[in-house]
Amino acid sequence: MITNKVGKRIKELRQEKMLSQEKLALKANLDRTYVAGVENGKRNISIINLEKIIHALDTNFRDFFSKMGE
Amino acid sequence: MITNKVGKRIKELRQEKMLSQEKLALKANLDRTYVAGVENGKRNISIINLEKIIHALDTNFRDFFSKMGE
Repeated sequence: MITNKVGKRIKELRQEKMLSQEKLALKANLDRTYVAGVENGKRNISIINLEKIIHALDTNFRDFFSKMGE
Repeated sequence: MITNKVGKRIKELRQEKMLSQEKLALKANLDRTYVAGVENGKRNISIINLEKIIHALDTNFRDFFSKMGE
């Protein structure tokens, strides 16, 4: 499922940046439980929220997806 | 806005493939008016629906975003 792949990629980048889910959520202006649900592949994230997370991880869509298995 | 960028990229690829909005919608199993709204940047598409469109365009997330301005 794409939701799992996106969630894994977010988690991977978040851990590289040494950010907690809480810190990432705060930076992205999203709820921590929402971010947790996205990382677990349980949420069908919208492109606007994905952009918030991608920017909070100091990256961009190109790099985010360039290393995602698909 | 990310919704505009995604919409433009979909339209560009759809036209390269010589597909009408209707044909693309049919292939992606989505409503034509929904696809039109996404192309116009008026819809905040979810990752699952974006995957449907990307696959209907015979491409993948990597290539879709690798050429998108951001």
